[in-house]
Amino acid sequence: MGAAAMAYVLWTRHLRFDPKDPSWPARDRFILSAGHGSMLLYSLAHLTGFDLPMEELKRFRQWGSRTPGHPERDLAAGVETTTGPLGQGFSNAIGMAIAAEHIAAIYNEPEFPLFDQRIYAIVSDGDLMEGIASEAASLAGHLSLGRIVFLYDDNHISIDGSTDLAFTEDREARFRAYGWHVQAVGDGNDIEAIDRALTAAGQDPRPSIIAARTIIGYGLPTKQGTEAAHGEPPGEDELRRAKEHLGWAVEPSFLVPDDVRAHFEASGRRGGDLHRAWDGLMARYRKRHPERAGELDRRFRADLPDGFEAAIPTFPADPKGKATRASSGIVLNALAQRMPELFGGSADLTTSNQTQLKGGPDFSKEHREGRYVHFGVREHGMGGILSGLALHGGIVPFGGTFLVFSDFMRPAIRLASIMRLKVVYVFSHDSIGLGEDGPTHQPIEHLAALRAIPHLTVLRPGDANETAQAWAVAVGRPDGPTALVLTRQAVPTLDRSRYASAEGVRRGAYVLADFGDLPDVILMASGSEVEIIVAAGELLAAEGLPVRLVSFPSWELFERQPQTYRDEVLPPSRPHRVAVEAGVQQGWERWIGTEGAFVGLDGFGASAPYKEIYQHRGLTAEHVVEAVHRLLGAKVRE
Amino acid sequence: MGAAAMAYVLWTRHLRFDPKDPSWPARDRFILSAGHGSMLLYSLAHLTGFDLPMEELKRFRQWGSRTPGHPERDLAAGVETTTGPLGQGFSNAIGMAIAAEHIAAIYNEPEFPLFDQRIYAIVSDGDLMEGIASEAASLAGHLSLGRIVFLYDDNHISIDGSTDLAFTEDREARFRAYGWHVQAVGDGNDIEAIDRALTAAGQDPRPSIIAARTIIGYGLPTKQGTEAAHGEPPGEDELRRAKEHLGWAVEPSFLVPDDVRAHFEASGRRGGDLHRAWDGLMARYRKRHPERAGELDRRFRADLPDGFEAAIPTFPADPKGKATRASSGIVLNALAQRMPELFGGSADLTTSNQTQLKGGPDFSKEHREGRYVHFGVREHGMGGILSGLALHGGIVPFGGTFLVFSDFMRPAIRLASIMRLKVVYVFSHDSIGLGEDGPTHQPIEHLAALRAIPHLTVLRPGDANETAQAWAVAVGRPDGPTALVLTRQAVPTLDRSRYASAEGVRRGAYVLADFGDLPDVILMASGSEVEIIVAAGELLAAEGLPVRLVSFPSWELFERQPQTYRDEVLPPSRPHRVAVEAGVQQGWERWIGTEGAFVGLDGFGASAPYKEIYQHRGLTAEHVVEAVHRLLGAKVRE
Repeated sequence: MGAAAMAYVLWTRHLRFDPKDPSWPARDRFILSAGHGSMLLYSLAHLTGFDLPMEELKRFRQWGSRTPGHPERDLAAGVETTTGPLGQGFSNAIGMAIAAEHIAAIYNEPEFPLFDQRIYAIVSDGDLMEGIASEAASLAGHLSLGRIVFLYDDNHISIDGSTDLAFTEDREARFRAYGWHVQAVGDGNDIEAIDRALTAAGQDPRPSIIAARTIIGYGLPTKQGTEAAHGEPPGEDELRRAKEHLGWAVEPSFLVPDDVRAHFEASGRRGGDLHRAWDGLMARYRKRHPERAGELDRRFRADLPDGFEAAIPTFPADPKGKATRASSGIVLNALAQRMPELFGGSADLTTSNQTQLKGGPDFSKEHREGRYVHFGVREHGMGGILSGLALHGGIVPFGGTFLVFSDFMRPAIRLASIMRLKVVYVFSHDSIGLGEDGPTHQPIEHLAALRAIPHLTVLRPGDANETAQAWAVAVGRPDGPTALVLTRQAVPTLDRSRYASAEGVRRGAYVLADFGDLPDVILMASGSEVEIIVAAGELLAAEGLPVRLVSFPSWELFERQPQTYRDEVLPPSRPHRVAVEAGVQQGWERWIGTEGAFVGLDGFGASAPYKEIYQHRGLTAEHVVEAVHRLLGAKVRE
Repeated sequence: MGAAAMAYVLWTRHLRFDPKDPSWPARDRFILSAGHGSMLLYSLAHLTGFDLPMEELKRFRQWGSRTPGHPERDLAAGVETTTGPLGQGFSNAIGMAIAAEHIAAIYNEPEFPLFDQRIYAIVSDGDLMEGIASEAASLAGHLSLGRIVFLYDDNHISIDGSTDLAFTEDREARFRAYGWHVQAVGDGNDIEAIDRALTAAGQDPRPSIIAARTIIGYGLPTKQGTEAAHGEPPGEDELRRAKEHLGWAVEPSFLVPDDVRAHFEASGRRGGDLHRAWDGLMARYRKRHPERAGELDRRFRADLPDGFEAAIPTFPADPKGKATRASSGIVLNALAQRMPELFGGSADLTTSNQTQLKGGPDFSKEHREGRYVHFGVREHGMGGILSGLALHGGIVPFGGTFLVFSDFMRPAIRLASIMRLKVVYVFSHDSIGLGEDGPTHQPIEHLAALRAIPHLTVLRPGDANETAQAWAVAVGRPDGPTALVLTRQAVPTLDRSRYASAEGVRRGAYVLADFGDLPDVILMASGSEVEIIVAAGELLAAEGLPVRLVSFPSWELFERQPQTYRDEVLPPSRPHRVAVEAGVQQGWERWIGTEGAFVGLDGFGASAPYKEIYQHRGLTAEHVVEAVHRLLGAKVRE
């Protein structure tokens, strides 16, 4: 209710959108970062003509409704991104602005100003307190993302009470320090003042924030201006008196006077007119620039380019091999040649993650055509921005950091997973294998923690060719984000004439080799530990023991295979199973059974040359062989 | 090398420490937040007389050495906190400053200025980019933590290269906006200028930051001032030429001239003199204020008060019951009466988390004696600050947020776990049971993700009495942090005359009841799902099936029990096992075996009244009974 006036001005006078075609690529974007005010967004979408009938508004926060407690991405209902956890929508918006700048730079022509969209958001005190917003705001200022226009709902109230309790910084000075254009509107209900500020914001080359002093729960006789208006429903009496105070009919409960509806619908229709004009422009563009137009259409359809798989390199067998982060860099660059939509960066670990794109400038204030962003040491901001890039459309984003720092961006990964966005996380330095940097930098529990997130696919390839296949999965899958988990250290490139094709990666787990018929033992591993089971398998085979080697880069992909395939790889007759992974055991029980063995870690790492850590922690072929002997011995004793 | 001059001035002229008794409570604290410069810290500790011999310096980053790649907490070596992940040390320091203010306010007397310590840190560009630092800095300004004195090593270089790539905000203006006292020193090698700035910082009532312009890798002929000095060793030739340039002997490699050692050791000795003077003051204080002195000593020994367990309330049986967050609030307040060291807050969810402490003011600029901090919507900052409170000593910190937002503070939880700090995380709204707020606020994978972290104990109590026991475990355990996972919704308070005592919580899992002899089926659950297995157990017992009910609040505690106890609770004769938890299955296989059943969730939640979500997702007693029937049926078919 406090933000209603600003939202009204924005939606009726500035925001360009077409409720009848809500995915129009050149539309402005609106993000309600303060997602707890979801009903404001639903109301605007309903009134301006989106496909969100009054019936849905009446089913607010009910099972199966399209009006959940916090907005969940639903373009048809005008919801561009799922918000609620504070700071996330804020950073999504920064990502959308980067995408908009880039797409405009690539496809616009002097006669064809196809893309000129602005990214609007309503942000709250809570958004501004969250670190992710600080990170994203600093980067937005650095990149001078003038398309950003944020309305800050400065209501001086958070859940605990007055912002005087915890939030007394000078917000305006802080945003000026980031390089933003900052305006203040003393009365958030002053429609003309908001209008003027929005116009000025749109003309400034910097990202803009308009701090509008508002009153939370405006109009509620006893609750306005207090934290009671934040999370609690106002109650019947309070509502009735608010309606009386505002000169609104008390009954019916859900009332939209005809003139109000007509007024809002006119805004929606104006947007439709803009869209049709744009369609005309686009039709002429298609004639003049048919190839680029085709590429643009394809990108917004999220189709892959024809024959992109031909771009995926293969790597010759090599006992010395290379780090999977290095293979990843090669594959990424090969794909990027064919896929102009690949766009990403790293959180200040470009060389370590091997995410750099060769040729072409970085994305910067001067080079909007660049496809590589230096995110700075801002993992969480990067996570939110990657989601925003994907949400905008036309972009397949990737972003790199160390696997251990996936923790810093976890809330953003979770939301990307809820939304099933196509985002590729490049997590290198994936174990104690990073060595000397020590336990603070060595992920132990991160594979388990990431695997626990629904819709996220975690892929930990075991050599260069598995890495190539992992990238193919990541850019190919349409139904969610992918985490590529990569080594710092070199691993051998397996001889695929001896071992099965790396295409098995696409099924999550596959038989690399059987040493002998009807295996008595199955050794399985992911990533750098595949090398260990290969060595252990050879030792056991030399003992005459029939052994199967299973490369197991992805639980999620394997789970989606038909039972027949899963039984083929891991026969239910239950040979003795040993899993090897440089991480915690949690969840491996599913694959090894309660009778199986796990060779991994049960505590944090250590600072030392990595081969010593592997030795000291028992991650060796010899130790795996011992584990097998113990298993078989136990059987003999049975 | 770039920060050597500032560190030298700080350690020889300002920092008060006693290398012979590094845990002296009234010492100043020094945090190297930019942990990658660990050798600087080791060198200073070695030179000033800490127990860190040259041999350890020579074993830098080697297995078993006390000089790991990033500093790991080791008071004897002058390392106050484990750093490396950027922004963490920064926020730890803020927590230490809060602790120092509070302890001073409680125990100082006009004649006994016992506590006057400052919290110094060296922070880097990367620290300032991380969101956690923004959160902590804003709160530090709000709370006017004048004890904070940070040296900002402003070297204009991060791993990717110049900070011009990603970090061009006006840092000084930003910190002024937070309410900090900001100084700039143009030449970070100007010892007298640094000295003057440190003196001025110490006198200012606001937190201080001194931006000292430095040159990374100062002295390295080709690498200084470039990102090559960040992560790569300089190499022999570069080192030799640097030594020549600085007028230092090239050989031996590790050389400390006698006069240098004497100069640094003198600083350590001056600190020892200060400590002895303080001991004298403390001795007089002990006479004058014996009770308070005793309490102070106890708090710094991290001993619990005698008979604190008597403070733990018990709750009468109540079929209607209450939310475990509500029981938690009652228990917390009961404990806080006996334990003045309990000190904490919430990230703007005070009423939701039920973490408020009754009576007494909040901790604020005006009320340093307050024990409750409004952290604002700053979960990650709160996490780092909680660790800092624990690191300071004399405090047992707690902090609340929703369980879903544990993701925001995960990097801080991880470091607290690595350091085995006694911190209590109060995570309420622990499942789809929070209802209408929807999937963005409903944790699904968070129990699994937290259980994956070594040294962290996760406790999800099933009723009010289990909650009381969980608090007793949390404040009692000396070897790591505890996450209390609590419901939003009411759960029945079990009748402990019918069911076993809730003290079983301390063993992680315990038999609530056996319906019949030699159970054929074991039902196990944590938290709010205990209610479901109790109901299911009664249904099955009515069918005449012998059933055991196991309350399973903590995997970690159960894992630490002797095998005999574990076999008692979950007999290896393997009755059919069913686990019920409103979360993902991952890891439960360990307890139910591959033949068991899991009744839980395999995807995100939904926005609706919570009982409907439980129904729709099959988390009901009826569904558990069906799962048991299926298991038994499968057995019959075998």
